[in-house]
Amino acid sequence: MSFELTKPILDRIRTDVEDGRDSSVQELLSELHPADIGSILDRLTVEEAVYVYRLLEPEEAAEVLLELDEDRREELLGSLTSREIAEDVLEHIDSDDAADVVSELSEEKQREVIALLDDAEQREDIEELLTYEEGTAGALMAKELVQVRTDWNVARAVVEMRRQAQEVEHVYTVYVVDKDDHLYGILPLKQLLFSAESTRTLIKHICDTDVESVKVDTDVEEVVKLMKKYDVVVLPVVDSEGRLVGRITFDDVMDVMSDEATEDYQLASGISEDVDATDTPLVQMRARLPWLLIGLAGGILSSQIIAQYEGQLRIDPKMAFFMPLIAATAGNVGVQSSAIVVQGLALGSLDGVNIFARLWKELRVAVITALVCGLLIFLVNLGLHETQALTYTVSIALFSVILSAAMFGTVIPLALDRLKVDPALATGPFVTTLNDIFGLLTYFSVGHLMYGLFP
Amino acid sequence: MSFELTKPILDRIRTDVEDGRDSSVQELLSELHPADIGSILDRLTVEEAVYVYRLLEPEEAAEVLLELDEDRREELLGSLTSREIAEDVLEHIDSDDAADVVSELSEEKQREVIALLDDAEQREDIEELLTYEEGTAGALMAKELVQVRTDWNVARAVVEMRRQAQEVEHVYTVYVVDKDDHLYGILPLKQLLFSAESTRTLIKHICDTDVESVKVDTDVEEVVKLMKKYDVVVLPVVDSEGRLVGRITFDDVMDVMSDEATEDYQLASGISEDVDATDTPLVQMRARLPWLLIGLAGGILSSQIIAQYEGQLRIDPKMAFFMPLIAATAGNVGVQSSAIVVQGLALGSLDGVNIFARLWKELRVAVITALVCGLLIFLVNLGLHETQALTYTVSIALFSVILSAAMFGTVIPLALDRLKVDPALATGPFVTTLNDIFGLLTYFSVGHLMYGLFP
Repeated sequence: MSFELTKPILDRIRTDVEDGRDSSVQELLSELHPADIGSILDRLTVEEAVYVYRLLEPEEAAEVLLELDEDRREELLGSLTSREIAEDVLEHIDSDDAADVVSELSEEKQREVIALLDDAEQREDIEELLTYEEGTAGALMAKELVQVRTDWNVARAVVEMRRQAQEVEHVYTVYVVDKDDHLYGILPLKQLLFSAESTRTLIKHICDTDVESVKVDTDVEEVVKLMKKYDVVVLPVVDSEGRLVGRITFDDVMDVMSDEATEDYQLASGISEDVDATDTPLVQMRARLPWLLIGLAGGILSSQIIAQYEGQLRIDPKMAFFMPLIAATAGNVGVQSSAIVVQGLALGSLDGVNIFARLWKELRVAVITALVCGLLIFLVNLGLHETQALTYTVSIALFSVILSAAMFGTVIPLALDRLKVDPALATGPFVTTLNDIFGLLTYFSVGHLMYGLFP
Repeated sequence: MSFELTKPILDRIRTDVEDGRDSSVQELLSELHPADIGSILDRLTVEEAVYVYRLLEPEEAAEVLLELDEDRREELLGSLTSREIAEDVLEHIDSDDAADVVSELSEEKQREVIALLDDAEQREDIEELLTYEEGTAGALMAKELVQVRTDWNVARAVVEMRRQAQEVEHVYTVYVVDKDDHLYGILPLKQLLFSAESTRTLIKHICDTDVESVKVDTDVEEVVKLMKKYDVVVLPVVDSEGRLVGRITFDDVMDVMSDEATEDYQLASGISEDVDATDTPLVQMRARLPWLLIGLAGGILSSQIIAQYEGQLRIDPKMAFFMPLIAATAGNVGVQSSAIVVQGLALGSLDGVNIFARLWKELRVAVITALVCGLLIFLVNLGLHETQALTYTVSIALFSVILSAAMFGTVIPLALDRLKVDPALATGPFVTTLNDIFGLLTYFSVGHLMYGLFP
């Protein structure tokens, strides 16, 4: 049923490739879904992958290509001639995937490949799709769809649909447009399946006009929200004049959702590019080092701040004992507060909530938390028989740091969102570092005061 | 087209409710999708929400109920009688949603509501769905589907399908079963739309037998993976004998994907229950405090470890300056390493990769990173004219800490995964705290050694 990639399978393919047992490889792969073949090719060396790729039927090979990791796809495309890409790959895939493949080629190869396409309509479709900016509905949509006109009768519509459906792999719904191609409504397949082929009924009288659509320049995040909210399997895309120009299907939206979740999670974990366990160490380092350097800079800044309080540390070296506690708590609270805001923004549960209402709510959470934690550490230090000065310093600093980290944690993602920066950045190392520094500053200021009061 | 919830809209509804202008509220809501009405009800007070809910037509109200936050739904259900739930809500929604609603009721009310259902088939469906464990395909599936028999001819199949389709809101595909209800294949709607209604052709000769399915006890994570991988809009569910018992649609899977992404992100941010910006301060605190207490315990443990090195701090209080740098870097590196493993596990790119191969790759990344960071801090401390002992201590400790945090960060999520614990836990505060402590221990041990070598 479901295929699981194991080491024995990989090993078998590797030895088969090495020994040139092509039919053995072909037999094994013939059982598999393109997605599974893709995951195998991702694991082989480039040379092995190219060899196996060339053993596939063109139609299957094109499907497999779409399932590969971006890096591996680039490598495989590099081993294909422009003619092979145009005739063996692009001919067999939908326009949106074709545009994606073409966009991964060098500009020169793009022109060559497009010029080699026989079908003028396909050429125009790909050229159009390439003009849309990444991250918009236009760049995500496919041109393939089935559409009928408001002024056709059902019988004519059925004939036209049958003709058009040859070109479209999955027909989820039939679109209805007026004579100027403006989106007018949809004809759900279910309804079509069960309505008689009358020559008198006009499409405009039986179609459903209550249809959600997006514009070509709508942000994909908005597309995802709409599709999730309204549970539609396919969303029509219109141009600025309301003319139907494409459709976005649920599978593309699922991919966007995964990518967004990955991006948020990586930002929160201090990884700046989309890297994967399969990427080379160098690529992984490039994604990780910048954040570590920010953390390092923060650490150096911290060291300079603590240096200002060296006198304090000479009076009581025990002040140093609780630095990690203060810094870590500030970081933890800040990340929690930010995460709640980030999720609220993503899920829309903060729509129509003003920033002060949000801050007020967070403040109430923070005050209780700060009281609990402050009291707890007070009792612990009493138990440890620490000096009065240190006991008060740690408790009061912890209390203050929790409040300020909660406020920072709430304001920063909201501000980032206003500035059109991904608010998930706030849950990453940058803000944690800021909270660390601010926490230590608070701690030593409170310490300075307390050691004055309780010498 | 797309509705955006704003404060003026909320305010208008609130005053309309207060002044009893029912028709004004109804007029406003009649334009909106149930999902949008749901987001409005989520924002009102319970009393207002109940009032508005009762202004809706039963069919629409049932749809709205499904779109609400869980807490709000529970409150609204609490205001409805068992008869209202059975007749006005459950009658109008699919079996999977109905089972979800029923499962949110108290046991006693569950029995009452089920007993009040007129339709015996619906009663059985709901009772069956309630038996499946949460998190399995069975608990996610709906019973509504259109199925035909292998031994029917096309004409008979069309008649049966038309009858069955009355009961099913969205028909994405038609399932084919044998005489014992075993799943045999599918009839894509597109094919049906374009095939003649012959009385001679048997369904088993025209259906597609290459169909993915899952068992009732398949984990939902597996369902999500399959659906994303194979781009299917609806997945059939079979029992242990291979009999077709339900179907899972893309919209349910999208919801699961969102929930999983939220859960991972929250675990990584130190939030233990599914909380939302709209939850009460008390609920938010309950989800956050445990993690802060773990951090606090870690901080106290750190303080005790540092206390062991108080002598060291008395010799050179400057040792304290770089504690935050060491602890923060250890935390950052550990989270990065874990995040890459967590994503690799989720996306399947670590399938068939053994733990030592993964560790070896991570080690190479870590060594370069550690060299860069260690050298950098060495140069900074040279520039700051710190003592030899301190300069060497910080650089060597930083180098070691990056290596060990990377190794911990890789091993821990892999180990959690083996233990069937969500590996995303590894990117949360618990492991960061461990890395903090281990980092400080390393730092002071190295310091002890260096201050011996360079007195």
